[in-house]
Amino acid sequence: MSTQFDHASINKKANVYFDGKCISYNITFPDQTRKTVGVIMPGTLNFGTDVPEVMEIVDGKCRVRIGSDGEWKNCSGGQQFKVPAKSSFEIEVQETVHYVCHFNNQ
Amino acid sequence: MSTQFDHASINKKANVYFDGKCISYNITFPDQTRKTVGVIMPGTLNFGTDVPEVMEIVDGKCRVRIGSDGEWKNCSGGQQFKVPAKSSFEIEVQETVHYVCHFNNQ
Repeated sequence: MSTQFDHASINKKANVYFDGKCISYNITFPDQTRKTVGVIMPGTLNFGTDVPEVMEIVDGKCRVRIGSDGEWKNCSGGQQFKVPAKSSFEIEVQETVHYVCHFNNQ
Repeated sequence: MSTQFDHASINKKANVYFDGKCISYNITFPDQTRKTVGVIMPGTLNFGTDVPEVMEIVDGKCRVRIGSDGEWKNCSGGQQFKVPAKSSFEIEVQETVHYVCHFNNQ
């Protein structure tokens, strides 16, 4: 797993969710794919999805539940989880999570 | 003022300061210059500097005091302030600040 993205464009303004409990930055690539890099501080948050997402956990520890009736699964640095389009996931962060969100499985 | 950086490399792991009150990402460019993009949530924080820094406020509202005896000055989106090397600044954020930190006046 590479530690950085190269040849990317990054917004100077962040996305701020839940009063700063989650901060992310939009990144786009020459082939027009879009990702975000972000941080989620300890606590439990719920996110909705529009398109399919792959959440790559770069560092940290959490539990994740996909959709309204999914089972809680542990997830930590080096692992990832998939969320379908038009769905949601609940994330309980135990150790600050650094993540990359890949949209449309790209 | 452009809204994004292009042709950049971005660390996937953020810098987290003061329990997440300030989050930033390291960005490097083909000419090896380095900047950070970051967010500071409402509150008052104190930062030390190693090399000279130019803090470009992308959005938000704050007051800034440079060094231990500087005067408080208002600073908001579109403005910037300079901090010498081996110094410090205190920042009182009123509205979430999105910033770019330029090192060594580059």
